[in-house]
Amino acid sequence: MTDSTSQRYYALELDKKDPLKQFRHRFQLKDPRLIYLDGNSLGILPVETPSHLGNVVSEEWGRELIRSWNTGWYERSKQISEKIAKLIGAKPNEVIVTDSTSVNLFKLSYAALKLKTGRKGIVTDELNFPTDIYVLQGLVDLFQNQHHLTLVKSADGMGISLYELENSINDGTALVSLSHVLYKSSFLYNMKVVTGRVHAKGAMILWDLSHAVGAVPIDLNGCNVDFAVGCTYKYLNGGPGSPAFLYVREDLQDKIQSPVWGWFGQKNPFDFQINYEPASGIDRFLAGTPPMLSLSALNPSLDISLEAGMDALRQKSVEQSKYLIDLWRHFLDILGYTLGSPSDENQRGSHVSLKHKEAYRICKALIDENTGKFTVIPDFREPDNIRLGITPLYTRFVDLFDAVMEMKDIVENRIYEKFSSQKDKVT
Amino acid sequence: MTDSTSQRYYALELDKKDPLKQFRHRFQLKDPRLIYLDGNSLGILPVETPSHLGNVVSEEWGRELIRSWNTGWYERSKQISEKIAKLIGAKPNEVIVTDSTSVNLFKLSYAALKLKTGRKGIVTDELNFPTDIYVLQGLVDLFQNQHHLTLVKSADGMGISLYELENSINDGTALVSLSHVLYKSSFLYNMKVVTGRVHAKGAMILWDLSHAVGAVPIDLNGCNVDFAVGCTYKYLNGGPGSPAFLYVREDLQDKIQSPVWGWFGQKNPFDFQINYEPASGIDRFLAGTPPMLSLSALNPSLDISLEAGMDALRQKSVEQSKYLIDLWRHFLDILGYTLGSPSDENQRGSHVSLKHKEAYRICKALIDENTGKFTVIPDFREPDNIRLGITPLYTRFVDLFDAVMEMKDIVENRIYEKFSSQKDKVT
Repeated sequence: MTDSTSQRYYALELDKKDPLKQFRHRFQLKDPRLIYLDGNSLGILPVETPSHLGNVVSEEWGRELIRSWNTGWYERSKQISEKIAKLIGAKPNEVIVTDSTSVNLFKLSYAALKLKTGRKGIVTDELNFPTDIYVLQGLVDLFQNQHHLTLVKSADGMGISLYELENSINDGTALVSLSHVLYKSSFLYNMKVVTGRVHAKGAMILWDLSHAVGAVPIDLNGCNVDFAVGCTYKYLNGGPGSPAFLYVREDLQDKIQSPVWGWFGQKNPFDFQINYEPASGIDRFLAGTPPMLSLSALNPSLDISLEAGMDALRQKSVEQSKYLIDLWRHFLDILGYTLGSPSDENQRGSHVSLKHKEAYRICKALIDENTGKFTVIPDFREPDNIRLGITPLYTRFVDLFDAVMEMKDIVENRIYEKFSSQKDKVT
Repeated sequence: MTDSTSQRYYALELDKKDPLKQFRHRFQLKDPRLIYLDGNSLGILPVETPSHLGNVVSEEWGRELIRSWNTGWYERSKQISEKIAKLIGAKPNEVIVTDSTSVNLFKLSYAALKLKTGRKGIVTDELNFPTDIYVLQGLVDLFQNQHHLTLVKSADGMGISLYELENSINDGTALVSLSHVLYKSSFLYNMKVVTGRVHAKGAMILWDLSHAVGAVPIDLNGCNVDFAVGCTYKYLNGGPGSPAFLYVREDLQDKIQSPVWGWFGQKNPFDFQINYEPASGIDRFLAGTPPMLSLSALNPSLDISLEAGMDALRQKSVEQSKYLIDLWRHFLDILGYTLGSPSDENQRGSHVSLKHKEAYRICKALIDENTGKFTVIPDFREPDNIRLGITPLYTRFVDLFDAVMEMKDIVENRIYEKFSSQKDKVT
């Protein structure tokens, strides 16, 4: 970074040249003092969502009532799924929006293990999101400890070497379950290479796309992926707890079953037959009635991502994460902040973790409305990570510059000392 | 029914004397031509819900963003659960709102079968809602066909005799899973007696309250019930696909586990530990992030039911279902309509099924906006049931009178013949 590129006006210049800059206006950003760097945890409300959802509530539910099942609701999961399919390189009939990521992980991991009888190994990595690991631990218990779960270790606490991963897979491995982007470090697996290696060992792969979808181009079909799940309330801006999705490659769908034989996964739910026959295709992974309000809020959100296009989003995201790392090196390195994310952008998703021994109190100071010029919202992840989420739809270069200046000030002037290290319920 | 009680003005008189009549104004009922008798399938939108939900969307999500997890969202499931607990005679720490009814049936049935190792029998009845039966069939498959599922037959297609039920339970029975109110006939099980008999045989009971909660007083603790699940979008007016709830009696909670080891069911989800330790108590049955918009919409709805009180609701519901059956006997019996619900109100929930060989086309004619004086919305259930749902919060006696007159006219004048018997997707 030079004298000129380390100035605020340079960030403003980058914003002016940003081909995606118009998309920021599609989001509700009313507080000019707010710098929101947590879109990797909960995306910002699209401007269109309140009226869209208001219509679902007052017209579809309020006026049409039960009739809406025949005039839109019954198809809504599928329509929304088709939009997600476009974002992840899948066919429309390979994706379905339903339940939570945890429940979907459970359903697909169960199905994979049932398909691969004879093989009892499950592989994941120790940096995976806890719910992904918990669900697999639960399945080991469910299958009466006939399976064994291997957690591949990380040498640097940041990522997993392909060599180590491959060494953990053998001809007894049934399933490898990985997050495409790791939630703390932002480490990005090479989906194509890893999937190929897993298949070469005769195992199946399940990718959790939660921290990748909407920020990183994904080509499930091009990589020949077996299974995937993902979350819609992060980079896809679907709203708190919006329904998750799952993907099953077309040729596998009729070979497997969900453990939860719910009526929406039945062949003809409204025939009310008393024998379960699974629907053909991806619909067999539905279970109960979908939460229509939370589901419907996905519509305007997904349209924005589709309009921007994944390649343009990724290009901006990479430029911004490189810029942020440059700022770290120039301003923060000397203050005890270390880089907790891969420096190679090909191994990095769309957030950057900076570590500091006072990370928790620094986060508190950043978020505090009466500290600094801006209210900066990152998030804290144990034990010392400050996650700075870049959402190319609305994050500006100047946001990154201003946030770094706040982080500099908080440590330089020991402002964090004013804050308690007592943890909040949700961090 | 006399000459005077079979007149429309008599219904209007009953409405005037109705102590709950003011509650109707709490619901969005804009179309004076609409008679909605499907609150047992999807409750009407409360007037307060759009602004309540609008605030969740624009303020909690839009303005506060991720900070709302610390200022309300994290506790919301529990707060809403406490309201439901009051409606079903449970302690606040025995109920949790989460997932769908199907997923909750799966989690609790699984847990019950794991607790009762040694016993391999599962009992339900053939009139139970399909998803309840499917989930049990799925568990037989999951446990590798070591269990066997008994479907108790119905002699009259309407209800199940206690004698037949008891005869199906033996010392090999692990779990009896029943719906408190049967979805087609409205048959109401005696929860206390049945639970006692099931316990006397050493088995456990799971009640599905979906067609009862909000319409029938329920005393889970008083009946010493083991497990229950229920739906919130019928008589509780939570909105399409609003999250379901589950109940586990306090002393059982720490003896059982969910099959889905999701992070919200972990002891300290935001510590992000990699070993799953179940939360103590009912929280261990949580899985993923709750759908906050659909969840929040439950708040104004539940307040209305609590304010009205279950005893008053039941009293009005019984009066209305008796009145409706009187009308049927007076006007419809002669036209080929038969009563598909128990005539004894102690064995009846809050809807009344009338059967007719032209039931489907009669329903189409009732719903058609250009047929008759009113648009009457009941629902059709295979093969010949017209379900007339009574929701004492907003159903008027005159609605029942007018609906019966329409049903009379449609058959007397063969109006149904104008309609196709081609079924809709959702009936």
